[in-house]
Amino acid sequence: MAANTTVGIFGGGQLGRMLAQAALPLGIKCVFLEDAADCPAAAMGKVYPTADFAAFSKAADVYTLEFENTPATLVTSINKSNKHCFPSEQVLTVAQDRLLEKQTFTELGIATVPFCKVTGIDELTQAVQTLGLPLVLKTSRGGYDGKGQFILKTEQDITTAWQKLGSAAPLIAEGFIHFQQEVSIIAVRGQTGEIKTYPLVENHHHEGILSHSIAPAAANENQQLVSQATQAVSQLLNHFNYVGVLALELFVTKEGVLANEIAPRVHNSGHWSIEGAVCSQFENHMRAVAGLPLGSTAITQPSIMLNIIGQYPSSSDVLAVAGTHLHLYGKSERPNRKIGHITLMPAPPIKEPNQDKEALAKVVEKLPNKMGML
Amino acid sequence: MAANTTVGIFGGGQLGRMLAQAALPLGIKCVFLEDAADCPAAAMGKVYPTADFAAFSKAADVYTLEFENTPATLVTSINKSNKHCFPSEQVLTVAQDRLLEKQTFTELGIATVPFCKVTGIDELTQAVQTLGLPLVLKTSRGGYDGKGQFILKTEQDITTAWQKLGSAAPLIAEGFIHFQQEVSIIAVRGQTGEIKTYPLVENHHHEGILSHSIAPAAANENQQLVSQATQAVSQLLNHFNYVGVLALELFVTKEGVLANEIAPRVHNSGHWSIEGAVCSQFENHMRAVAGLPLGSTAITQPSIMLNIIGQYPSSSDVLAVAGTHLHLYGKSERPNRKIGHITLMPAPPIKEPNQDKEALAKVVEKLPNKMGML
Repeated sequence: MAANTTVGIFGGGQLGRMLAQAALPLGIKCVFLEDAADCPAAAMGKVYPTADFAAFSKAADVYTLEFENTPATLVTSINKSNKHCFPSEQVLTVAQDRLLEKQTFTELGIATVPFCKVTGIDELTQAVQTLGLPLVLKTSRGGYDGKGQFILKTEQDITTAWQKLGSAAPLIAEGFIHFQQEVSIIAVRGQTGEIKTYPLVENHHHEGILSHSIAPAAANENQQLVSQATQAVSQLLNHFNYVGVLALELFVTKEGVLANEIAPRVHNSGHWSIEGAVCSQFENHMRAVAGLPLGSTAITQPSIMLNIIGQYPSSSDVLAVAGTHLHLYGKSERPNRKIGHITLMPAPPIKEPNQDKEALAKVVEKLPNKMGML
Repeated sequence: MAANTTVGIFGGGQLGRMLAQAALPLGIKCVFLEDAADCPAAAMGKVYPTADFAAFSKAADVYTLEFENTPATLVTSINKSNKHCFPSEQVLTVAQDRLLEKQTFTELGIATVPFCKVTGIDELTQAVQTLGLPLVLKTSRGGYDGKGQFILKTEQDITTAWQKLGSAAPLIAEGFIHFQQEVSIIAVRGQTGEIKTYPLVENHHHEGILSHSIAPAAANENQQLVSQATQAVSQLLNHFNYVGVLALELFVTKEGVLANEIAPRVHNSGHWSIEGAVCSQFENHMRAVAGLPLGSTAITQPSIMLNIIGQYPSSSDVLAVAGTHLHLYGKSERPNRKIGHITLMPAPPIKEPNQDKEALAKVVEKLPNKMGML
């Protein structure tokens, strides 16, 4: 066979599953490192528990990750052998640390939210002076969906905040900003250094979890915002000599975009690209990791991606709505768990997704958990 | 889970593999009946050898097929249990017999090529009178890619033809027709009787094997041809109370379309629909078999599908051409074997595939076996 690469993926969730689905037609087989034997990716390839890391590290030709909290030490151990893991431990370390992440933005001249490093209560008091109130105090590592955070509203909150999070120092204090929209830009860099970016996507959250994404974001009409975002993500990719897909989350403000965080992997806000782009984020990531030429990131049709959270809808109900594509991950139902997604594609002729509220409402009505979307 | 159907598929080739790929996001798992353990479908689910038919017949909730020569007796045995196989043994029996197939067209009033049943040398002599020369004599069952056929050019060929094929009687004699184009129409019928048809596709053969398909065929501009083809395939689907995808191959002549043959399964000339239609033939087949609502068969972008025959091209070379999608089946190389396909999608803005000869030539140049395409 012309292509018979095996790619080892750290993590076996839905991202791993969708990576493997995109890889199969390219002649690329995937294996996974994941402790849950019945994980979503198990439908697509062999799953090694972390205790079998030694076997996993021999099973593939090249490695990548779908789980952002993959221990950097494991990635290092691959890169110290005669094999490669894309992305590298360097970017992983930065992405796992909010403080390092924002410091990297600043070093590269990428506008980000105002922030201060906080290692003691004095620095926290200083941060309140510098950034003003309210502000958010966060642990630099760990924490997810609002955990490991404390919002300071008055100076009286300083002591309580420090008591609560001080033991996890260094912390990061972030000033509140007034943003109009949350967007993300997904980009892919190949082994030759070639970079392609998908259009900006508009992201909507409910209780800290992504509920739906609109592709393309209305912000794409503002060429200055697109340039800023494209330049920022390109700088990051080149800085890390990155190979594969990286997502950059941004706030759109009156003054331009502010970088918020990076995800060194395929991203929930890029799921629309399976149906809505010439080459999906999943295929482009696997092409990059396997050293193949990248595919076009051009949008083929506007779409809305809705996460299925906690409970499955009736497949028949969802598919009866014209223009829906259903993606179930094979996970059991659990509150606040992402267990699938629906891509809503306006049927030809193309309509603007922002004008397609009625179609969106029809799909959302079918969801057991409406995620505050209606 | 909302959907946890298991579908049993007779056959484990590339069609089974692509059916299972389309099924996975719908929460549908597939198992296969296939003697080659390393078949293309093995990447997507458990493979039962035919000796384990009893286990296979228990392993799934509903059955379908990807291999046209599936023994009708096996399908009958599923349908006699409390389970269903779509399509039924009735349509399979017709599709496996050229004579029955053409007789069915005639019974349903569907225009087909002129033909005669031949059970003896006298009937062959009569057929030569009725149909004129040249004519093609074919076995009614078996034969593939030009095997089991004899072309009679003069009356002197009657004896030789009968000596060669007579033992396989009943035979079918088919008159030569002057056609402008070979097209196919792929249609899907759901369990509620709902029918959707894909646009007509133009098919090109080389040495009896499909080399490439163009979607949509120029013939779609002739509304009368489209109506004839749509009516013919709908009649067939309703006649058989068919569930799933069926392909009808047609000749376009000055007088209209003539039905040539049916394939009671997803079809090579529908592979373009993975990227080029809102819902692919594979997903629509699985939706139908699982009793889900059908998806739109509308074309999203014109495309050309090229088969990869015999030898793999370099994946890098193919993917370096803008607008290519690569599908490798995981089969070993062998002369005249279909081992993959390439879908060439004109990049936005949309171009007519017929005008896109230059892009096609670029892709064909990358193929080790150019299949007479240049």
